[in-house]
Amino acid sequence: MEKKLEQLKKILAEVYDLDRISSVLSWDQQTYMPPGGSEDRGNQLSLLARLSHERFTSNEVGELLESLKEYEKQIDPESNDACLIHQTRHDYLKDTRVPTEWVSEFSRITAISQDVWTEARPKSDFASFQPHLEKVVAMRRQYSDFFKPYDHIYDPQLDDYEPGMKTADVKAIFDVLRPQQVALLKQISDKSQVDDSFLQVTFAEKGQWDFGVEMITAFGYDWKRGRQDKAAHPFTTTFGYGDVRITTRFEPTELNSLFSTAHECGHALYDQGVPKDLSRSPLHDGASHALHESQSRMWENLVARSFPFWNHFYDSLQKAFPKELGGVPLEKFYKGINKVGPSLIRTEADEATYNLHIMMRLELEISMLESKLAVNDLPEAWNKRMQEYLGIIPPDTKDGCMQDIHWSSGYFGYFPTYALGNLVSLQLWECIQRDIPDLEKQIADGKFSGLLAWLRENVHKYGHKFEPQVLIQKITGSKIDPNPYIRYLKQKFGEIYNL
Amino acid sequence: MEKKLEQLKKILAEVYDLDRISSVLSWDQQTYMPPGGSEDRGNQLSLLARLSHERFTSNEVGELLESLKEYEKQIDPESNDACLIHQTRHDYLKDTRVPTEWVSEFSRITAISQDVWTEARPKSDFASFQPHLEKVVAMRRQYSDFFKPYDHIYDPQLDDYEPGMKTADVKAIFDVLRPQQVALLKQISDKSQVDDSFLQVTFAEKGQWDFGVEMITAFGYDWKRGRQDKAAHPFTTTFGYGDVRITTRFEPTELNSLFSTAHECGHALYDQGVPKDLSRSPLHDGASHALHESQSRMWENLVARSFPFWNHFYDSLQKAFPKELGGVPLEKFYKGINKVGPSLIRTEADEATYNLHIMMRLELEISMLESKLAVNDLPEAWNKRMQEYLGIIPPDTKDGCMQDIHWSSGYFGYFPTYALGNLVSLQLWECIQRDIPDLEKQIADGKFSGLLAWLRENVHKYGHKFEPQVLIQKITGSKIDPNPYIRYLKQKFGEIYNL
Repeated sequence: MEKKLEQLKKILAEVYDLDRISSVLSWDQQTYMPPGGSEDRGNQLSLLARLSHERFTSNEVGELLESLKEYEKQIDPESNDACLIHQTRHDYLKDTRVPTEWVSEFSRITAISQDVWTEARPKSDFASFQPHLEKVVAMRRQYSDFFKPYDHIYDPQLDDYEPGMKTADVKAIFDVLRPQQVALLKQISDKSQVDDSFLQVTFAEKGQWDFGVEMITAFGYDWKRGRQDKAAHPFTTTFGYGDVRITTRFEPTELNSLFSTAHECGHALYDQGVPKDLSRSPLHDGASHALHESQSRMWENLVARSFPFWNHFYDSLQKAFPKELGGVPLEKFYKGINKVGPSLIRTEADEATYNLHIMMRLELEISMLESKLAVNDLPEAWNKRMQEYLGIIPPDTKDGCMQDIHWSSGYFGYFPTYALGNLVSLQLWECIQRDIPDLEKQIADGKFSGLLAWLRENVHKYGHKFEPQVLIQKITGSKIDPNPYIRYLKQKFGEIYNL
Repeated sequence: MEKKLEQLKKILAEVYDLDRISSVLSWDQQTYMPPGGSEDRGNQLSLLARLSHERFTSNEVGELLESLKEYEKQIDPESNDACLIHQTRHDYLKDTRVPTEWVSEFSRITAISQDVWTEARPKSDFASFQPHLEKVVAMRRQYSDFFKPYDHIYDPQLDDYEPGMKTADVKAIFDVLRPQQVALLKQISDKSQVDDSFLQVTFAEKGQWDFGVEMITAFGYDWKRGRQDKAAHPFTTTFGYGDVRITTRFEPTELNSLFSTAHECGHALYDQGVPKDLSRSPLHDGASHALHESQSRMWENLVARSFPFWNHFYDSLQKAFPKELGGVPLEKFYKGINKVGPSLIRTEADEATYNLHIMMRLELEISMLESKLAVNDLPEAWNKRMQEYLGIIPPDTKDGCMQDIHWSSGYFGYFPTYALGNLVSLQLWECIQRDIPDLEKQIADGKFSGLLAWLRENVHKYGHKFEPQVLIQKITGSKIDPNPYIRYLKQKFGEIYNL
């Protein structure tokens, strides 16, 4: 048995290496590659994807999994080996259900639809994009068909990002969340608004970069096993245990790069915290997209948008920007960076409105898959929900239903993980507050080692061993629950807006 | 037949892609990778090397080559297809003679000996390095054994870098060159020496970087298909037709980075000039190491160390460094950057002494392979030749026989290509002077498009289609010939030193 397991691990290490090689190539593509490199890079990435897919879905893997069935039952189900076999089986059964021809056709279709989207979006030209989105939706429907029978057509999509989770679970969670968030937003809009005009000035890039570095160094980001570069769309990427990189971008006004840097650092701290003995296997990863997002949102919002954090760091930021912030008191700054207001763009939304953007996307993508909403009617359906949830209507599709890349890329099932991540971040936070009673004081002292140690011990060390709901239950005692997040929003914005 | 050829091309494209992916990973390793990334990067590179080797040496390639034999005879031997089959057969026959076990053992042995060399060199600790070098030499002897019968044990080594060339050819060339270079050096040393003290001051990095960029932009380096980064040891690397990158390094004193940048740009112009229709095949490469070096040395020495070049560019360099160079007249600057003198280190040698460093290395590596020189006696043999050719003796092995990485890495057969490249650069230059009578004036006007167009048309466009000696004969009418280089040295340094 041990020999079979070793053989399986050897193949999985190869698949892992091939996928990490792809990550290096994608990182380069988004940071340094000159424009002429695109065509060759496409060939290189497509070759690596094929080699990895072929290796992982080979009969050899199927036979090894089959012959390890008995062994799996005999060992501790929480051991690394048992989890490895379990997770590999989940992925293998899924990947082998999807014909290779479908995979390559889907990759062709989405490459085109992404290009069309890139062209059409700035012109708000939904008519050009529509036929391509229709093809993508049709293929996503086919994808679900490979997994029949299912409870819900959206289940196989969601499972790609949140293994084991069902559409019914997400709907139940969002049904609790939605009315509460809409009501809170209404309450806030009735109050006098926060002044953030001091953020609408020019902040020099070097000052932003240096402050960001100071901040994430304090968080515990390990520079010996990572680095930071600039990219048009910030992301975190992992090339192995010893190389977890983040990227950031700068805009002259506002200070969004700081929060974006904190966000990416949260992802990176997770990946840097997955133990070395899980390396070069499918377990060397986060538990799911929602779990990953719980980490990034925690450092971005619960830490870097908190009062205790700025109590410590505001001095340093004022020193970096004496002209811009010298005359802005701490309280005013804190309220300014936490200003709430309905906005058109998801990625710019504040904590109190962000989930509403997600919920409407989930409803719309499910309706499209169920054929209840024709792609043709998407712009109208989008605007109707924007009016209903946020009280505003986009003037065009550029800042309406065409704003995100996800649908053009075929990422159906991805959106809800952003909101679920927010919810999980608060479930964890309540546990941390219980286990570290002076958490706020530590943060106000600029000390994050207690927080990071808690995350390492309770979240990171498990890597990709368990399904997300299993892991969250294990850590917090319950599955994903919207109530901690609702409590948090009410308290934080209750104070800021005197509700 | 066309189908078989298409199938062969498909496999070769895959091998090409795998090798270019390795290049991306190596580039990252030498430019941006954090220290923690080493272990994973090693695994990734070793996987890619194995996949590429397995694919290329597969029976399928052998069978395709066999079945294309007749077809090859029927088509124009200078056509892309004929050259592709010919070159692939050369490499296939070579690669399949070497057992995979030898390849992996050699890679293990050299990884260790490189590490030992890195440790031992700064301490001039030859005793530690010696047993490892002995193993490397023994394995290089075995390597030649795979190609028995051979005329000379060094032939299979040389053929790895200069396909088709024989040790006897190189020896004959160097036998003409050696006495002439030694005599010239003697003549120069009897004259009053050039003053280059003005180079021994601090030149700010930004000024060096900006001037380098201005220079290679003028040369014709295509920034849309490349970029420049910093690396400890400058190199050029190619990820495909559309992405040919260079690296450079800076030291505060002297201006060596400028010549190094010109050198790497020469390599890059070659690779950027290989036509797109040779892309993703073994023909998408230079003809050989010597041919590649002829391009880099041409831009470095024949252009960037020439009087006409500085006649145009010195103004700009003085503007970048007004304090450092404002008081140095052009003639003095020109002589300073061309100062001749025996030196210990090959990579810092001037044009008049460089080849002597190469010739002694060739003699020594041949003697070691022939078992005429024991590794144990290498330091002494080294010093004896230094005394004989350059008139100086290194005080230690750090700056003596341990200065280069090549032997520790197992690169036997590589050194002569540096000197051959110098010789070829002059053979080409004499043709260019004949075809472009106002070449000097063009360079003095800062115009390089005529020169680059000539190289594109006469050298670059052939890529890796022909063996180096065949190509040189085709372009210049003769095989590699030391006389143009000797004429050049005598004229250039005759003027500078009033010989």
